Amino acid sequence: MSNNSCNDITLSKAAKFLKKHDNYIILTHSSPDGDTLGSAYAIYYGLKEMGKIAEILCPDEIPKKYSYFAVKTERVTVDSPTVISVDLADEKLLGGLEERFRGKIQLAIDHHISNTRFAENLLLDSNAAAACEIIYELLGALKVYINDVTAKALYTGIATDTGCFKYSNVTAKTHIIASELFCYDINAAEINRLMFDTKSKRLLQLERMVLDTAEYHFDDKCIMLTVTDEMQKETGCSGTDLEGIAVISRSIEGILVGITIKQNGDREYKLSLRTFEPLDASEICKSLGGGGHKRAAGVTLSGTLEEVKNTILAEVRDNMEKANVRASSDK
Amino acid sequence: MSNNSCNDITLSKAAKFLKKHDNYIILTHSSPDGDTLGSAYAIYYGLKEMGKIAEILCPDEIPKKYSYFAVKTERVTVDSPTVISVDLADEKLLGGLEERFRGKIQLAIDHHISNTRFAENLLLDSNAAAACEIIYELLGALKVYINDVTAKALYTGIATDTGCFKYSNVTAKTHIIASELFCYDINAAEINRLMFDTKSKRLLQLERMVLDTAEYHFDDKCIMLTVTDEMQKETGCSGTDLEGIAVISRSIEGILVGITIKQNGDREYKLSLRTFEPLDASEICKSLGGGGHKRAAGVTLSGTLEEVKNTILAEVRDNMEKANVRASSDK
Repeated sequence: MSNNSCNDITLSKAAKFLKKHDNYIILTHSSPDGDTLGSAYAIYYGLKEMGKIAEILCPDEIPKKYSYFAVKTERVTVDSPTVISVDLADEKLLGGLEERFRGKIQLAIDHHISNTRFAENLLLDSNAAAACEIIYELLGALKVYINDVTAKALYTGIATDTGCFKYSNVTAKTHIIASELFCYDINAAEINRLMFDTKSKRLLQLERMVLDTAEYHFDDKCIMLTVTDEMQKETGCSGTDLEGIAVISRSIEGILVGITIKQNGDREYKLSLRTFEPLDASEICKSLGGGGHKRAAGVTLSGTLEEVKNTILAEVRDNMEKANVRASSDK
Repeated sequence: MSNNSCNDITLSKAAKFLKKHDNYIILTHSSPDGDTLGSAYAIYYGLKEMGKIAEILCPDEIPKKYSYFAVKTERVTVDSPTVISVDLADEKLLGGLEERFRGKIQLAIDHHISNTRFAENLLLDSNAAAACEIIYELLGALKVYINDVTAKALYTGIATDTGCFKYSNVTAKTHIIASELFCYDINAAEINRLMFDTKSKRLLQLERMVLDTAEYHFDDKCIMLTVTDEMQKETGCSGTDLEGIAVISRSIEGILVGITIKQNGDREYKLSLRTFEPLDASEICKSLGGGGHKRAAGVTLSGTLEEVKNTILAEVRDNMEKANVRASSDK
């Protein structure tokens, strides 16, 4: 829900706002990731340091792997606590908490350019690689003491939202903040191991099965991977477990389009596309009723697996032709 | 070969040395990686900037993926060029160039604490995550102009030697240098994609085969992966292609020891071990005649695959018992 009365505020205005109130509810987005949690906890520890009372509310269960900073917070019991959100681009992403907090968020701190301006006040920096970059600067503006756990939370948000400093959202500032966080006892290597190099046995099993389904098309410029309901059932993998599969599809040398097909019931398939220049994933998906970004987009298709594969391959072929990508049209 | 007359020199002394001479041969280590190549080319471009003549000699062919900075260098034709080495811990690692240059290296620039002090002068900083960190500071001391390609070379060395800022060798200084390199047009995301997210089709095929061999032991605290000669032949994978396989073995949740067995002819197997606390990979390998580091070590064993597996599992079991790791002894 867009809100025309949403005020864009500066870092120092946001700092003043946080000094003024005493009881805070901090909201994260659903399917919480390192950045929304890191942001929430860093601001939580900062508010505690300032003698405030604060509670973090997360629409979903917090994954155990964040337990090195994500502790259980106290309960805020006053009637009208001050409500702030972190890394939340849209109230819809509050999941089960949307009904309770819709229209009630007084300060949103975010780095998504797509922020729907739902809050009363908005501290937005769309150049920040992670919301945690903004929180780090906010804690600086508040002049609160940053302890090692706060630094770990901030580092986690920055590392996870940048693929450990790998993606195009990284700036000189990202590395400067990281260097400053290294002044604390954060054990970054251990955080990175937990975040990036720890796979469950069941996920490894799923990857093995999915690799068996690999199909190459258009002179190896396209790879197609399939995750069936049966594979998900057999391995017990679902949800965030499956995010890594789409990553595989874009990591093969020479690939211009990686397609991951995830079965979702009897005749429904969710497709994730990853593309490289000159192909546009959102163009391909849009013409089939889906959408997304230039490099990553998705669409849901109905039919048999065979039909779905033919539909997407035909669309990819059309887009390759339009983009003058030469490939034998094997499908 | 240890050399008692090796002088430890400072950054400014090394800068003076480079100003003094005019014709340079720059040596990298064999099986060149991003750090040795990034170091060699960054210093090469710096020397060119100073009007010097320089040639890079690499014992092995330079992988194509480094072509965005690793161009063909000129030939140095003078009788007695000044010979320097970068990221070279031991003259033995000169491979086919060892005979020609043994005892002739006048300046070694390195970050390996294990440097065998083979050179006349040694600029060593074992706290540097990459040799490229030292080269960056050296170029600063020389006050030479750093162009975008030099910055790309330096970033490549730092990113590759740290697993993209993931490992425990990263320091605040590493991130500071990275932030300064972001002031150039380096397109770090594209470098990182090339270095970390680009897999050959044949490697994906090999990974699929290797995952099929996964065996879990000792209550899933140990995973064992096997790469047979046949798999290598069928996929055409060898050498550096296989480095990623050992990484898989240490990335599974709850694993304390990851074993990768690589067949090397009829009855010979090269084992790579990766361990976590409290297990010591070098201890396990040492008792079988191998060696290495605490977290990564290796050993070569003879026998049938079955015999080799039993030998290493028995040794792992002994070490688990010694370290009081509780596990059902399935082997």
